Amino acid sequence: MTHNDGRVRAVIDAVRPAVDGGRFAVKRTVGEALEVEAHCFADGHDVLRAVLAWRGEDAKDWQEIEMQPLGNDVWRAGFTPESIGRYRYTVAAWVDRFATWRHDFARRDDPADRALAVLAGAELAGQAAARATGADAKALADWAKRLRHSTEAALDEEMAAIAARHPDRSHEARWPLEMPLTVERARARFSTWYELFPRSAAAEPGRHGTFKDVEQRLAYVAELGFDVLYLPPIHPVGRERRKGKNNAVSAAPDEVGSPWAIGAREGGHKSIHPQLGTQEDFRRLVQAAAEHGLEIALDIAYQCAPDHPYVKQHPDWFRKRADGSIQYAENPPKKYEDIYPFDFECEDWQALWAELKSVFDHWIGEGVKIFRVDNPHTKAFAFWEWAIAELQRAHPDVIFLAEAFTRPKVMHRLAKLGYTQSYTYFAWRNTKQELTEYFTELAQGPGREYFRPNVWPNTPDILTEALQVGGRAAFMQRLALAATLSANYGIYGPAYELMEHRPREPGSEEYLDSEKYQLRHWDLERADSLRAYIAAFNRIRRENPALQADASLRFLRADNDQLIAYVKQTPDGANQIVCVVNLSPHHTHGGWVELDLAALGIEPDRPYQMHDLLSGARYLWNGPRNFVQLDPQRSPAHVFRVRRHLHREQDFDYFL
Amino acid sequence: MTHNDGRVRAVIDAVRPAVDGGRFAVKRTVGEALEVEAHCFADGHDVLRAVLAWRGEDAKDWQEIEMQPLGNDVWRAGFTPESIGRYRYTVAAWVDRFATWRHDFARRDDPADRALAVLAGAELAGQAAARATGADAKALADWAKRLRHSTEAALDEEMAAIAARHPDRSHEARWPLEMPLTVERARARFSTWYELFPRSAAAEPGRHGTFKDVEQRLAYVAELGFDVLYLPPIHPVGRERRKGKNNAVSAAPDEVGSPWAIGAREGGHKSIHPQLGTQEDFRRLVQAAAEHGLEIALDIAYQCAPDHPYVKQHPDWFRKRADGSIQYAENPPKKYEDIYPFDFECEDWQALWAELKSVFDHWIGEGVKIFRVDNPHTKAFAFWEWAIAELQRAHPDVIFLAEAFTRPKVMHRLAKLGYTQSYTYFAWRNTKQELTEYFTELAQGPGREYFRPNVWPNTPDILTEALQVGGRAAFMQRLALAATLSANYGIYGPAYELMEHRPREPGSEEYLDSEKYQLRHWDLERADSLRAYIAAFNRIRRENPALQADASLRFLRADNDQLIAYVKQTPDGANQIVCVVNLSPHHTHGGWVELDLAALGIEPDRPYQMHDLLSGARYLWNGPRNFVQLDPQRSPAHVFRVRRHLHREQDFDYFL
Repeated sequence: MTHNDGRVRAVIDAVRPAVDGGRFAVKRTVGEALEVEAHCFADGHDVLRAVLAWRGEDAKDWQEIEMQPLGNDVWRAGFTPESIGRYRYTVAAWVDRFATWRHDFARRDDPADRALAVLAGAELAGQAAARATGADAKALADWAKRLRHSTEAALDEEMAAIAARHPDRSHEARWPLEMPLTVERARARFSTWYELFPRSAAAEPGRHGTFKDVEQRLAYVAELGFDVLYLPPIHPVGRERRKGKNNAVSAAPDEVGSPWAIGAREGGHKSIHPQLGTQEDFRRLVQAAAEHGLEIALDIAYQCAPDHPYVKQHPDWFRKRADGSIQYAENPPKKYEDIYPFDFECEDWQALWAELKSVFDHWIGEGVKIFRVDNPHTKAFAFWEWAIAELQRAHPDVIFLAEAFTRPKVMHRLAKLGYTQSYTYFAWRNTKQELTEYFTELAQGPGREYFRPNVWPNTPDILTEALQVGGRAAFMQRLALAATLSANYGIYGPAYELMEHRPREPGSEEYLDSEKYQLRHWDLERADSLRAYIAAFNRIRRENPALQADASLRFLRADNDQLIAYVKQTPDGANQIVCVVNLSPHHTHGGWVELDLAALGIEPDRPYQMHDLLSGARYLWNGPRNFVQLDPQRSPAHVFRVRRHLHREQDFDYFL
Repeated sequence: MTHNDGRVRAVIDAVRPAVDGGRFAVKRTVGEALEVEAHCFADGHDVLRAVLAWRGEDAKDWQEIEMQPLGNDVWRAGFTPESIGRYRYTVAAWVDRFATWRHDFARRDDPADRALAVLAGAELAGQAAARATGADAKALADWAKRLRHSTEAALDEEMAAIAARHPDRSHEARWPLEMPLTVERARARFSTWYELFPRSAAAEPGRHGTFKDVEQRLAYVAELGFDVLYLPPIHPVGRERRKGKNNAVSAAPDEVGSPWAIGAREGGHKSIHPQLGTQEDFRRLVQAAAEHGLEIALDIAYQCAPDHPYVKQHPDWFRKRADGSIQYAENPPKKYEDIYPFDFECEDWQALWAELKSVFDHWIGEGVKIFRVDNPHTKAFAFWEWAIAELQRAHPDVIFLAEAFTRPKVMHRLAKLGYTQSYTYFAWRNTKQELTEYFTELAQGPGREYFRPNVWPNTPDILTEALQVGGRAAFMQRLALAATLSANYGIYGPAYELMEHRPREPGSEEYLDSEKYQLRHWDLERADSLRAYIAAFNRIRRENPALQADASLRFLRADNDQLIAYVKQTPDGANQIVCVVNLSPHHTHGGWVELDLAALGIEPDRPYQMHDLLSGARYLWNGPRNFVQLDPQRSPAHVFRVRRHLHREQDFDYFL
């Protein structure tokens, strides 16, 4: 910050929130407040004023909100964006001569001194009158006249308020950065995903499923309470070097291959696999899903089967080996010969970027607004920043989920570059300490301003050891944790509700007979299905806004290491949820759970009701410490809504 | 960071250290290393290389040092500036095709694959040869030829090292900021200050002291081990509204007034008070001080007595009251009618700034290189940033100490703006917890990169309650703490060594009969003087580089709340000092002090010697916990040098 005018005496520093000093956007959703803090001060003892200024990125005029001093030179103000899009915010501060005069005047005790000082006040009032118009100008001018003859009205509150509306800001300091803010729709913050393979959706075993079959499945998915239905790639599957069942190196002629081996003579990333249906079928599916309250999310995987049309049309988009063949994906000594990665360092990179972006444009044109991006961390970062910005500028309601299971800084970078949501390490966080540390970091660490976790207990690539060995209780526990720890979560079904748990081989996280390489048929009506359990959690999530955001998450003390307890609440405290989960898949555990009553607004000496939203049971609790016991075979979790006691004289007992 | 070329795949983030994201300079002194860390990574699995680049601010060429990966995508390199001045540093990183090829090649196990891959290596070697010259070019070209026929030399270490010297950096990422670094002389980091009033330096009572008297005092100050002799303002003292003894509202005709009421008909900030001597006398004093190893530091206080020449020459540099009189300093209801502050918002601010800066230029011209600036926080911040930068550009060896006892963010701002050293809250940190928290923050908080504490147990304005009531032991304790906790410290003498402790009134921190308003005569030869005690500490400081920097400070556990213990060591561990101070001025205290043996490089099962540099006593300690007892009446502190046991076969016992 350099000043051309040396008379700028105010200083602004440490404007927060800021992602990498304003290099990247802070994220919010519509209706979520952005609270901004800054350090503002000036030399000496003069009185400072500061404003938070914000505008839509394309708006010319700034809106301003007066900041309030919190002490220690920290100032704060907030605003709540009412529509999606990109915004800018900054801070201005100035030494306020009128406020300084008034502050000093109130402390003057020498009458001669006051008589002289009031004349300075009259001059300042006159100057404020000159800056004002209409009624304010007249009121200030009149007041200035009165001050010239009497000290009586010097501290008039009303006049001070009018003068404050017309400050002299000619020497104001302004934070040199216009900090970016991206405001997305509510689903960016709160979403519940169900992943299924359309080709396994046929009603009868052995037949290749179609979009029409998926249409028949919509009621089931909606009944389970999901709002996003995510489909693995729906494009033509490559035939060259096609993989067989259980990732066999070669496929029998009738095998279906992996949908992530994209592209064949029928087309590539903008085409539909003929066995799934037509473009028209797809459009109808999107429409039917919407009627069930479901959005279709597509998988974008930037890689090509050897017979993808791009390979012939744009051989220069791929790297060559010394023998002139195209370089397949590899991480020596491992080879993935059925996949060609794009070469982001190729000479023709601009055309490549444009074509890759146009894949999104195509599907947006088909009505898709949510994309799960496969392995974004193996494509150039600069591409994502450009593509997401361009796409969201045209379609600010598009949501991107980054499937990057990789190193922390890389995952955070993708979120900074614009990804709406990010997969997490949740699948591998099992103990109380692991879960507490990880979710505390997610909710309270610097990433909370830009990294929105989307947690999955399983995916087609991830069948964790916990699920392999923990039985039904493990599936219930991991579902309970995912659905309540994170406002965004998803499952890969029907494998999840049917508790599919056989690995391809011991020590592997791959499913045996994985749908990635073959059709499967699922018996949704099985008596042991977890569908009702899952539906209960999704209903509770919809009904309780505390579970629809992550920043409020706080862990509670519980004196048993197998019991994890935490609380989430809305900013106004109107909705408060306390969860207790038994982490052992084998044994009943009990322990004392300690609430922070003050943080919940509960008076220490009054009872309060804990309403278990899963069982419907209501418990009357007293004081901060209460005993909880959970049998994982029956139900490993409590999801309590806290109902505070209201004391009204006309009621005997009334719970909010 | 935006890329015009989309092929730049490396990402650089979080370059540290950084003061406010590079807005302000990191500070070091000559010979102190700057260790730089950055997050560097790229998409995918390719091998990255990164360099730290640095240059003198006016140099054209960058020097580069290869950064090393520490894991988790953090990279580090350091350099040690060899001369004072301003520097810039930044980071570059690139996806290295040669290093990636070599990394992959080493892992290939398929002979056909290796045969093909070596050809790619030959091509890369040829490209490196084209970038190289001389012997490197020839070696690489030869190697490229060999690789075309055999895989044998593919992993040749020597060739890899040569190729690494000629990387393809055409798509390198570069951190967009050239981060500023200010390198000052060693005294910026390590200095020992003695403040005295020249007018009280006369050998006989009642006479106004002179620069010549101060010359006679130099041997004494040097014997005490100080290296900076700081003089309160030496300018003509105003006569108008002069304050009397003990800050009386008016002075008797023979009273000397406050040296901070600057300016009279004899001159202002560039003049010398006639009773102190002539310009020639001052020059001789500066010279004589240098011969005693002392630098003269002057006090710069930007304020005017009513009869300062500026007031008549530049009435527009001051604010007017409504009656046309000049506004004196005030903080209603308090008035300081003998002092006129400058109006930094005046129209003529540019001339004001130039004149104020010229005060420094004048005294630099007289040989002064150290300035203690009075109340810098009541002058415009922008002025300081400009003035210090201009002055240090012309005179990089000039040191500025900010006397700002004010709110933390304001003190930190002044340090960021360029102040070399800063006064601190040390005088009011008394308990073990207060001292531990405060000095941990100073040594390890973000301020460590720019805020150099200079701690004073007393000043002419600050006679703390601890010194008022604690007797001799308190003066010894506070001296011991100041001299060992902080590489920069000072005392106001001879009040300190003579244990002057009477306040003007109960509850006040002002001295009774303060030298600020009257002459004092001090009996330096008093038998109870602390001069020998102080000299011992200053000798220990000079002989032990561990005490000449602050970053290594770590507090040790001691099981008695009245015992504070801490360790400082040089980066190479060659000099290690452990201090233990009894904080009670009244009672002997003992307790177990716990060393971190690993941090000191002491083997857990070997004895080590603790050599008390104050008493000369040597103790043999064993293991981490040892008992220490201190009688505050005799000596409230141990200053141990740790002498590790060296086991050489030819010696029986030898301590480093």
